This record gives sequence, C-alpha cells and structure tokens, in this order.
Amino acid sequence: MPAEKSIRLHDIGEDELITRLTAGLRMDEKVRCGPGDDCAVLYSPQPAWLDLLKTDTVVEGIHFLRGEDSEAVGWKALARPTSDIAAMGGLPSAAVVTIVAPGNLEVATVEGWYRGLQKAAEAFGISVVGGETSSTHSDTAVISVAMTGRVEKDRCVYRCGAQVGDAILVTGRLGGSLASGRHLNFKPRLVEARWLTEHFKIHAMMDLSDGLARDLPRMMKLSERAFCLDEKSLPCHEGISVEAALSDGEDYELLFTLAQDQISGLMAAWEKQFGNEPLLSVIGEVSTGVQTQMSGGWDHFSKS
Amino acid sequence: MPAEKSIRLHDIGEDELITRLTAGLRMDEKVRCGPGDDCAVLYSPQPAWLDLLKTDTVVEGIHFLRGEDSEAVGWKALARPTSDIAAMGGLPSAAVVTIVAPGNLEVATVEGWYRGLQKAAEAFGISVVGGETSSTHSDTAVISVAMTGRVEKDRCVYRCGAQVGDAILVTGRLGGSLASGRHLNFKPRLVEARWLTEHFKIHAMMDLSDGLARDLPRMMKLSERAFCLDEKSLPCHEGISVEAALSDGEDYELLFTLAQDQISGLMAAWEKQFGNEPLLSVIGEVSTGVQTQMSGGWDHFSKS
Repeated sequence: MPAEKSIRLHDIGEDELITRLTAGLRMDEKVRCGPGDDCAVLYSPQPAWLDLLKTDTVVEGIHFLRGEDSEAVGWKALARPTSDIAAMGGLPSAAVVTIVAPGNLEVATVEGWYRGLQKAAEAFGISVVGGETSSTHSDTAVISVAMTGRVEKDRCVYRCGAQVGDAILVTGRLGGSLASGRHLNFKPRLVEARWLTEHFKIHAMMDLSDGLARDLPRMMKLSERAFCLDEKSLPCHEGISVEAALSDGEDYELLFTLAQDQISGLMAAWEKQFGNEPLLSVIGEVSTGVQTQMSGGWDHFSKS
Repeated sequence: MPAEKSIRLHDIGEDELITRLTAGLRMDEKVRCGPGDDCAVLYSPQPAWLDLLKTDTVVEGIHFLRGEDSEAVGWKALARPTSDIAAMGGLPSAAVVTIVAPGNLEVATVEGWYRGLQKAAEAFGISVVGGETSSTHSDTAVISVAMTGRVEKDRCVYRCGAQVGDAILVTGRLGGSLASGRHLNFKPRLVEARWLTEHFKIHAMMDLSDGLARDLPRMMKLSERAFCLDEKSLPCHEGISVEAALSDGEDYELLFTLAQDQISGLMAAWEKQFGNEPLLSVIGEVSTGVQTQMSGGWDHFSKS
C-alpha cells in the first residue's frame, strides 16, 4: 500500500472513494435519505409526498464515443437519471444540463445532444429548465444532468429494505448493452416501477447501471442481507453469457425484492399488464447474513 | 463563414450557443421561468413559494488549476450556484455533486474538494445530499454542482424587470478576482440579497460571473432596456483598472436595479445594516432602447 498522500483514485476504486467522500457530509432536517441510494430523498412541503434529487453524467470515452449519434447520446444523458427516479418509484419533474466541451467541437454535435435530451424529456414528462456550458482545454466532452422528481411517501422504495426470504427479481434482459448500442437508446422503467409500487409492497429497488454483480451486493449491503443467485434463471440477452450479463453494466433494468408469497400474484398481474415486454424474472432469494461482494461488474477508477 | 456542418463552438461563442440550444426546449405548466435567468423557477406545491433549480460547474484549467488549494476549489464549486440562488432573492436548500476525474488523481485532492464543499454547505445552510463520480481518460477534472432552493413568490427577482429610470447598483468591488485568488474564497451575497428583497422592491437582479461588460447587457437585453454606465463610479478593487473591472469576471457580486426615488433610503439603510462591508455603489441608470452589447467580459468558447 503506498503512503496515504500518494494514493490515487484507481488504487481505491469507486465504492471506497464514495464512502470516504460521504463520511464528512452532514444532513439536516430537510433530508430523508442522503447519499447511497438511487436518489437523494427530501421532505416536501406536501406531507404525503417526498422530493427526489439526482445527478448523473456521461463522459466522452467512458459512456459514449466521439462520432456516436449525438441525439442518442443526449437521450442517454437524460434517460440515466430518469432511471434512478424510476428506481425510487418516483415521477421525474425538471432537469438542468451541464455541458463541458472543447471550443473546437462542432456546434451540430451539441445541438444533436440537445435534440436527444429534449426528445427524452418529452417522452418522460420532464422539463429541461436550464443549464450551464463551459469550455475545457481537454478533448473530452461531459454532459451532466441533474433532475428533480417526487414520489408519494408510501410508495418510495429504498435500496435498504430487502427482507430475508424475499424473492429477487429483475426486469428485462441483461448484458451486452455497450456492444449492442442499447446503452444509447434504453427506455427507463418508469411505467413499470410506478405500476409495481401501485400494486405491490416492493421491499427494495434500484436500477442496474454497473452490472448485477456490483449492484446486487450494494443493495444487500445496505439491506444488511445476503443473497442466493440462481444464475440459470438470469435473463441474458441473446448471445450473452451469464458472466457478461452479470458484469457488462448499463442495463438500466429494475432490480427489486418482494415477499415470496406475492410472487405468483405479481407474475400473473405483470403478464396481464405488460405481456412479455419487458420480461420479469425471479433470479434469486434474499438470505440471512450480509453479503457485500461478488466478482464482476464495472468499477470507475479501477485500473483493469 | 464556414459551411454549417463545420461550425465550431468557438465560432459562435457562448451566448449564441445557448440561444440555439434553448430554442428547441419546451417548458410545461410546472415552469415559471426556464433558461436565461440565474436559476430556473418552478411552481411549488406551496402557493406562496417558488422552487429554484440551478447547475454550475468548475473545470480544471478554466475555473481552477491543478495544485490550487483543493478545499478552496470545493468551496468555489458550491459557492457559485449559491450565488445564483442569492441573485433570485432565494434561500438555498440541497445540492448534488458530480465529480469527473482521471484515475491517477490523488484521493487527497478529491477529499479536499469535498471538505471545501461541506464547509461552504454549512456556511450557507445547504445539505450536500448525493453525487456521482465518473472516471475520464482526459487529465481534466470537472466538479459540477446542482442546487435546489426556494423563494417567496413576491420576493423572487428576475433579470428581466429593469425599468427606465432605475438606478443600477452593484455590491462589493469588481475586477482582479482570478489574479488575487478571490474567485476561490468569495462569499455569495445571500444575506445581502435576502435583506434587499425584504426591504425594497428590487426590479431586476443577477450575479456577476462573466464581468459587468457581459452581464449588464444580458440583463438589459432581457429587460428590453438600455443603460448609461458611469465608469468613474465603478467600485474597482485596489490596483484594478476600469477596463479590468468591467471584463475580468468571477466577481460574484450582485447587480440590480431599483427606482431612483428609493436610492437615498436604500443607501442609508444599507449603511446602517452593513456599514461599508460590502460596499454598495450606484453605477448607472436604465434608459430607453435595447442595449445588448458592450465590449469586454469573458466568453466561454471564444478563441481569444
């Protein structure tokens, strides 16, 4: 281990960095839930509601590539935080957009991003109400989107509520998102999440962004539970191995847990409501103990 | 003029870029005021209040330099959007932070940013409730802060309200912010703005971030007014020329207009409340016509 002062971000990885950074933050009485969940949750002036706040970013070379369809990049930039609002059971409201870009970037590219942002905003009932632009001396563009939302207090779902014996479920199919281009045109599971929280008592929920192998242990760590994963039941995209489905990331599907005795009712009602699009799969069970790791998944800052 | 498809950001500059980007946005009934002011303004569930939303960013090499005191950089990252909330007459509430950084950056630097962010958050009554971290393949770090706030409906001040005959005033002193390091430790004029809107009917207000020479014409363009500036009365920092005070930028002082017949009362009450710290200066008058330009000031993306 190098001396403290020369420790770099890639030495400790994303989760340890976030643990260190959030340790010194202090929440006040406005805050229902600070860092660690899909969104921050704040008390609302309307007692039956909670306010949601989220920021998310796409970085050139990491989340999109120069030359990729700029409208799709803009769509993705707005769809990512929308997916986090969905994962709380919430409704998105307004967004502000920060663009950091080199001066020699084509105006048409940035205009394409904004067309995609607006297209997604209209699709999900969001107003893009402002933004900020800054130049950079680097070649790397960044689009950062902050979003507000709201959710009925009794329908807000956190990551930390998984109960022993719960079934673990996932919407849609997993893996191959980057290679297939799905990461650029995915549809956040807003409608499905609202339907779930309207009809069922979902115990814990999050959206899958870094791959099931990283995200499921995060949920279980916060819930102080362990899990049994039935890898055979993983809904892999066509041609995708179980390993890739676990670790590719950028699926933007819902991962949630629900009491076992609700599952047959859920499956029947889901099929009636949505058919097979998206798929809904039971992939495991919550167990006793605390399980915080599993191999695979995407880590920002790791050297690999 | 080059062909449309090869126009670059530095060919059109920041204001034209923003005009193009925001032209395609559509606001819904939640929105009181979209892009163009210091903050976006949204209707609140509490009829007497409005919700504010702002995003602002600091980019390495533009707003701060590698090796600069990291706590001060974090302070600045949070103080900037706080200054925009102040400029609406508002109270800041919660913030979320996006960090984009290369994997080889020292952890201690990012921890320093967060200490500064938290210090500013406590100073201004804000909770940092979440964030997002992403790696980048570039060497350039970015800190983007989105902030919510609120303001009483009858105390919200827009950029567009300047009236012919109004005096134009500015708090504090201008110029030399980057060279002196003031841009890293400035204190947003929250208290002063709240006091102003409590006691006076401020017609238009904004914070000075790109220099008076750019920001005053922006206010007058939105107000559809022109202005006479009394350059001799500009409150320049010691050793700073009028030209530099007009164009250096990053002052984070309040620029506002008020009916002439209120000025003597304001000046007396201000001195009683604040003494000479900060200074309050009448620097000009709002006139008929529409004045949208003046030489000087900072333009992101311009080649100069």
